[in-house]
Amino acid sequence: MKKSLGAATVSLTNPVWIVGTYDAQGRPNVMAAAWAGVCCSNPPCVYVALRKATYTYGNILQRRAYTVSVPCETYVRQADFFGIASGRDVDKLMVAGLTPEKSDVVDAPYVAEFPLVLECKLLRTVEIGLHTQFIGQIMDVKADMELVGEDGHLDVAGVKPFLFSSVDRSYRAIGKLLGPAFRLGRDVG
Amino acid sequence: MKKSLGAATVSLTNPVWIVGTYDAQGRPNVMAAAWAGVCCSNPPCVYVALRKATYTYGNILQRRAYTVSVPCETYVRQADFFGIASGRDVDKLMVAGLTPEKSDVVDAPYVAEFPLVLECKLLRTVEIGLHTQFIGQIMDVKADMELVGEDGHLDVAGVKPFLFSSVDRSYRAIGKLLGPAFRLGRDVG
Repeated sequence: MKKSLGAATVSLTNPVWIVGTYDAQGRPNVMAAAWAGVCCSNPPCVYVALRKATYTYGNILQRRAYTVSVPCETYVRQADFFGIASGRDVDKLMVAGLTPEKSDVVDAPYVAEFPLVLECKLLRTVEIGLHTQFIGQIMDVKADMELVGEDGHLDVAGVKPFLFSSVDRSYRAIGKLLGPAFRLGRDVG
Repeated sequence: MKKSLGAATVSLTNPVWIVGTYDAQGRPNVMAAAWAGVCCSNPPCVYVALRKATYTYGNILQRRAYTVSVPCETYVRQADFFGIASGRDVDKLMVAGLTPEKSDVVDAPYVAEFPLVLECKLLRTVEIGLHTQFIGQIMDVKADMELVGEDGHLDVAGVKPFLFSSVDRSYRAIGKLLGPAFRLGRDVG
């Protein structure tokens, strides 16, 4: 038997993605987004859904670009700070002691210390309600040298990203491997 | 220093959401979606991004509704199967030994055995490329009775959803609690 919880954004497995942009004066800004994810394989696209009130909102519209820096567990405090403070009031990267690095493929900065970065040009803007979806085409992905093997494969376990649960407003780590996709289910039925 | 991995959908923290629909004959179907997530707080909305080739694609357009059933770890094999087989060829729920339950708020079925369900009416269709985004307004959320406390709060740790990494095509569990959001970062700087 199931119990109704009402109409709400009950989602336990949201990513914590740090969205990097430049403002009109060319100052780097970052914010934390959890309403975010992959939305197309070809062209490879992600989205971040933001409120109009955010400083990043205007930055993306103006520069037509953003980056997604994926923080590892070590930086959970800094990532949380990026979701609390506003770039209107403060240089968040400077306060957090982190380094903006200019992307070489899009007009946006990323967080140099974070292990994984997606560099996106704005493809589409979708107004939904309180949030606007910025669909970005991934122009390149970059990862820390030490996480990329000689065969070019990313050391997935080494990235250590974390999740945001909107239900209890908590951050959670990634846990154990459950098995290979598109294989586990082959013998069902 | 960072190394380029090329333009690809490198994302380690995708949800595994089982999309439930009825086909033209009223037969329940389910498929696994990983390009999925929350995209607006008000109205509360999620999306699932699907290829035109999927059976679910036509079902959603016709019925203007879908559900998202969130499987717990116990059902990782069945969830994987839902991403391998097609509802054109087989009754996936019957083969997996799981039960379609008709939603009481939208024209779509959900998986009775899975702990958490979002019931959505189609709000918007966004063509991106290979994938089409179906933005659904959450009309209700339902969870297993035993996971909802008397205060109406969901036992987040009890749901045990899991993730899909597109990089190594693996499923991973949720790990340890890292801390409370909008609080950890208060003392940064």
